[in-house]
Amino acid sequence: MLEDHKRTGAYYNACMQNRAAFSGKVVLDVGTGSGILAIFAAKAGAKKVYAVEATDMAKSAKRLVAAQGLEGTIEVIQGVIETVEIPEKVDIIISEWMGYFLLRESMLDSVLVARDKFLKPGGALYPSHARMFLAPIRSNQCRQRHHDFQNSMEGWAEFCEDMKQYYGVTLECLSEDYRKEQMDYFSYTAAWTDVHPSQVVGSAACFKSYDLATVTLEELKAPLKATFNMTVLEDGPVDAFCGWFDTQFKGSPQNPVTTEVTLTTAPDPTGATHWGQQSFFLHPPVECAEGDVLACEIEVVRRKDNQRLMDVMVKHRIEGKAAPGKERVSCFHIE
Amino acid sequence: MLEDHKRTGAYYNACMQNRAAFSGKVVLDVGTGSGILAIFAAKAGAKKVYAVEATDMAKSAKRLVAAQGLEGTIEVIQGVIETVEIPEKVDIIISEWMGYFLLRESMLDSVLVARDKFLKPGGALYPSHARMFLAPIRSNQCRQRHHDFQNSMEGWAEFCEDMKQYYGVTLECLSEDYRKEQMDYFSYTAAWTDVHPSQVVGSAACFKSYDLATVTLEELKAPLKATFNMTVLEDGPVDAFCGWFDTQFKGSPQNPVTTEVTLTTAPDPTGATHWGQQSFFLHPPVECAEGDVLACEIEVVRRKDNQRLMDVMVKHRIEGKAAPGKERVSCFHIE
Ligand SMILES: Nc1ncnc2c1ncn2[C@@H]1O[C@H](CSCC[C@H](N)C(=O)O)[C@@H](O)[C@H]1O
Ligand SMILES: Nc1ncnc2c1ncn2[C@@H]1O[C@H](CSCC[C@H](N)C(=O)O)[C@@H](O)[C@H]1O
Repeated sequence: MLEDHKRTGAYYNACMQNRAAFSGKVVLDVGTGSGILAIFAAKAGAKKVYAVEATDMAKSAKRLVAAQGLEGTIEVIQGVIETVEIPEKVDIIISEWMGYFLLRESMLDSVLVARDKFLKPGGALYPSHARMFLAPIRSNQCRQRHHDFQNSMEGWAEFCEDMKQYYGVTLECLSEDYRKEQMDYFSYTAAWTDVHPSQVVGSAACFKSYDLATVTLEELKAPLKATFNMTVLEDGPVDAFCGWFDTQFKGSPQNPVTTEVTLTTAPDPTGATHWGQQSFFLHPPVECAEGDVLACEIEVVRRKDNQRLMDVMVKHRIEGKAAPGKERVSCFHIE
Repeated sequence: MLEDHKRTGAYYNACMQNRAAFSGKVVLDVGTGSGILAIFAAKAGAKKVYAVEATDMAKSAKRLVAAQGLEGTIEVIQGVIETVEIPEKVDIIISEWMGYFLLRESMLDSVLVARDKFLKPGGALYPSHARMFLAPIRSNQCRQRHHDFQNSMEGWAEFCEDMKQYYGVTLECLSEDYRKEQMDYFSYTAAWTDVHPSQVVGSAACFKSYDLATVTLEELKAPLKATFNMTVLEDGPVDAFCGWFDTQFKGSPQNPVTTEVTLTTAPDPTGATHWGQQSFFLHPPVECAEGDVLACEIEVVRRKDNQRLMDVMVKHRIEGKAAPGKERVSCFHIE
């Protein structure tokens, strides 16, 4: 992920363009990995950086820190942030915790725990804000996925034939299960996509924003619910909703940045970050006309069987020149 | 794996061509999965089949059994074979337990536990025997993998350049680790291959055979050590050792089959089974002349950190017309 320069570069800029905010400060890097963000913070003038990493990556981080000659400033601590001891409160917490569709992996939970335990009153989080977006798109992948689904079902039918013919065993009793499983995979599982802006055929809605200084763990763990509108800007089918996020580096009111930096994962003609966008496909597509409004309700829920994954429900209805359309409900997984 | 017809067909033949051995017998299927082997055993005339499966596949197996009208004969039991109760001893244990290079996954352990707990004296195992082979090959993949390794190292060098130039961070202290990791992956990790018989440039050695009726768990868990020779049949480089296995269905001395069936995973012009062959690449290749003998020693050891994976060490030395070559030791992982 270091080689995702939109990502790494945003953190670099957030530090190096805000030396005044870092100068002489105590910083905590939650999940330091290779140590890179701790190094940026030290280069930006931090007096002391605690770099906490759960995995053996901590060993590489130590060596990398030493190779930069920063072992006097950065203390790498191998441990889980929830249980680790830090000898003092910190002015700044920096962390790269974002997952697909912002919240997959749920690592923000750990950053909030660190915030509540270690951040001084008025201290700053880097990033300080996060936002989630959805937009209607016309995707190349949608038709392909439907085709792949059909191929898979044809493969199954042939397989059933073979099993009958070769071994006299009938598999048809499992066909419905197989169909559901494949539908789930091809239609109801959100896909990593690198969407080109020209595929975005409507206005993007910011359906959720977080002030990371104040959001609580409880809010984060509860279902995320929002209602919003997206305006269609082109006649034709909408065959997917495309979701992405951005994070903003504003510092805190008491220690604001001088230069605000934004890390966005929006559709970009120069290509996606490693997060891409998450696309939610619509079978069949929704036929829209320019000016139609897609009235939407979204619900994002953590999966019970695996807190790091999520279910996403989108209710949507066209409000256009014609009579309002029927409400459609689509349910997706983020795997 | 059902669709691997060399595999499934061998079990089908082992049952259906040996109805006399199955007729009226009590059978245990260890790890029944979809239930297919239990169904074969019932079709071959078994009076009763216990079909044990640890996972939820047991539910599909139940439905499949019912769909064949065999619920009167086959009892599907969801559970781990090590702890499950079976109300009687059995005449035959059938199981498809083989992993890559025969032993990966270590599922044979569970079959031996079942044998010692549930098989009547004189009862038969299907398969009853297993053998492991190694042969010298000339592989297309070997050069490609070396090339991929070099590409990966070039990518790393560029990445270091970028990190230096963009962020002033030097990564060179991690280069040696990275090189080792990549070497490990590209050179020392055995690869799934579908070797064509024309690539086999020497005689195959059977370096290990198991009589499954008598092999003990202790023997299975101890390192496998063997010495053997392979004769090179073509001038030129040998750039990999290719490993495979077969299993034989002979029944037991007290209840022998009428028709012996062999399931082989040897190089095959019509394509590999899903097991393929495991190839162990040699950098640099060993230059050989027709008639040279490769004197080998092999050691296969379970990994301490994961009993299901294995380390493989091969010592080899050319004994040819010229003075005997130097001994080379190559160590590989099976992941
Ligand atoms: N609760 C926790 N405590 C400590 N480390 C954690 C953690 N949860 C996740 N991590 C670590 O956080 C890292 C997130 S990936 C980001 C790595 C690095 N900061 C960079 O920007 O390149 C991973 O290395 C992961 O092992
Ligand atoms: N100790 C154990 N107890 C019960 N089932 C086991 C087991 N170890 C492995 N298995 C099951 O054994 C199966 C092996 S794969 C073979 C499946 C089936 N017999 C066929 O030939 O198609 C898997 O379904 C696995 O879940």
